[in-house]
Amino acid sequence: MVTLAPASTDTLPIVRSVEDLRAQVAAWRGQGGTVALVPTMGALHDGHLALIRRARELAGHVVASVFVNPTQFAPHEDFDRYPRDEAGDSAKLASAGCDLLYAPTVRGMYPEGFATAISVGGPAEGLCGAFRPQMFGGVALVVTKLFLQALPDVALFGEKDYQQLMVIRRFARDLDIPVRVEGLPTVREADGLAMSSRNAYLSAEERARAPELNRALVEAAEALSGGAESGAVLDTVRARLQGAGFGTIDYVELRDAETLEPVVRVDRPARLLAAAWMGKARLIDNVPVLPR
Amino acid sequence: MVTLAPASTDTLPIVRSVEDLRAQVAAWRGQGGTVALVPTMGALHDGHLALIRRARELAGHVVASVFVNPTQFAPHEDFDRYPRDEAGDSAKLASAGCDLLYAPTVRGMYPEGFATAISVGGPAEGLCGAFRPQMFGGVALVVTKLFLQALPDVALFGEKDYQQLMVIRRFARDLDIPVRVEGLPTVREADGLAMSSRNAYLSAEERARAPELNRALVEAAEALSGGAESGAVLDTVRARLQGAGFGTIDYVELRDAETLEPVVRVDRPARLLAAAWMGKARLIDNVPVLPR
Repeated sequence: MVTLAPASTDTLPIVRSVEDLRAQVAAWRGQGGTVALVPTMGALHDGHLALIRRARELAGHVVASVFVNPTQFAPHEDFDRYPRDEAGDSAKLASAGCDLLYAPTVRGMYPEGFATAISVGGPAEGLCGAFRPQMFGGVALVVTKLFLQALPDVALFGEKDYQQLMVIRRFARDLDIPVRVEGLPTVREADGLAMSSRNAYLSAEERARAPELNRALVEAAEALSGGAESGAVLDTVRARLQGAGFGTIDYVELRDAETLEPVVRVDRPARLLAAAWMGKARLIDNVPVLPR
Repeated sequence: MVTLAPASTDTLPIVRSVEDLRAQVAAWRGQGGTVALVPTMGALHDGHLALIRRARELAGHVVASVFVNPTQFAPHEDFDRYPRDEAGDSAKLASAGCDLLYAPTVRGMYPEGFATAISVGGPAEGLCGAFRPQMFGGVALVVTKLFLQALPDVALFGEKDYQQLMVIRRFARDLDIPVRVEGLPTVREADGLAMSSRNAYLSAEERARAPELNRALVEAAEALSGGAESGAVLDTVRARLQGAGFGTIDYVELRDAETLEPVVRVDRPARLLAAAWMGKARLIDNVPVLPR
């Protein structure tokens, strides 16, 4: 049994090895407890903390993991400069009611001789999967490991990374991982910008223009719900983003809400998703589109 | 809770869905029981039954799975003609002390929309991995599923498929699957031929010549243990196999016993492995080579 430092309002027990994690989870289970896991890459904001609060409602004990996972970044991406702040994260997690922070090392997760990879098709195809071909395989690998290390009853993810949520549901079901996957609505700033650790890359001027991404999607979703064909509506979104000072627009697409297959006219629950660059930040957002 | 038919000496309860499997395992666990899993493709012989008997020693309850897994066969391979005999398998399992047969359907294992794959490098490279590039990914996928469906304490595999055993150990460790993997020595016919479901493909004449594979490996292992360089020794094995009427020799190789990296002179535990065709049967065998 691992000995944990006592929790207070602003500190949190931390474990760094899978053995210590499993010992704590086993102790809780031995008392009949249930466990929720909230996997994160740290740099926590209110979106993450909403996951922690919901996890508290769903299970007796809440574990958050903080691990910036190298296998989901391509060499040219922002692994090295991705924001890291363990002390700040720990205080935020404690304040939201988290019971344990699991912060493994890269060497602990991927030791010498590591030789296994997971690939996902279906919902991982297209959208972010087309622009970041390394990402979902890396996500599948690290999330599978975290699930099997902690074996929680439930794991929570934000809908801000909607495609990721559908990919996680897919491989968790395909591999028979005995964990329930819950998605939570995106948490937004007052002006609609989806909370994201990468918003820290925005200058003040870029930050002021960034909410246009959400506004354009919300208005387009309204038109699509009313039965408009997607072609012209998506073109309008692209034009608005260009007009608002976005750089490269990776995609603006209408997809089936579950399979993520392309949708032209909304006759079943769909999702409108976009990714576009604002300065050095690649921003993503998505909104539901329900048939009326 | 699933209701199972009572076991007798020659019948065995069978479940075909993961829900029924998990219900039975949960019932055993609820009584404090431990569980062993023996994954097979059926067509059972004494090698499989040795795994069941050992499983009985290691755990309170023994589950055998019988599933001819399509994802580990290439289109030109013997998936369709692979021997199947559920009634015979069931009787043999019952007589060896198995408690439950899990025989899922292909559709149950790989439902519509299935989109996940696993790949393994390291020990999966070379040897059978070079000649059957589809196999170890398929093995990793189905064994991961079986492990996560049953969540046994221990799973048992024969050393006859030595590379497969090392691959399973590798991905189980890499993915943090909480199952102990045990390997058991190859069970052989009186003349040394490794027991295999594929021996059924041999004609009487081929069957009489097949034991030369094991004899050649055993004598070569003796020379290699004594410090001989592998080159000439492996050439001798190949010549003996050709002389005995084997057709294509896929490989004869000396490898590290754990990593399966190539070895030239035995200064640590090694393994001598071979695959060669006799008529329509691709026979594999391997023997340990310890430094003296």
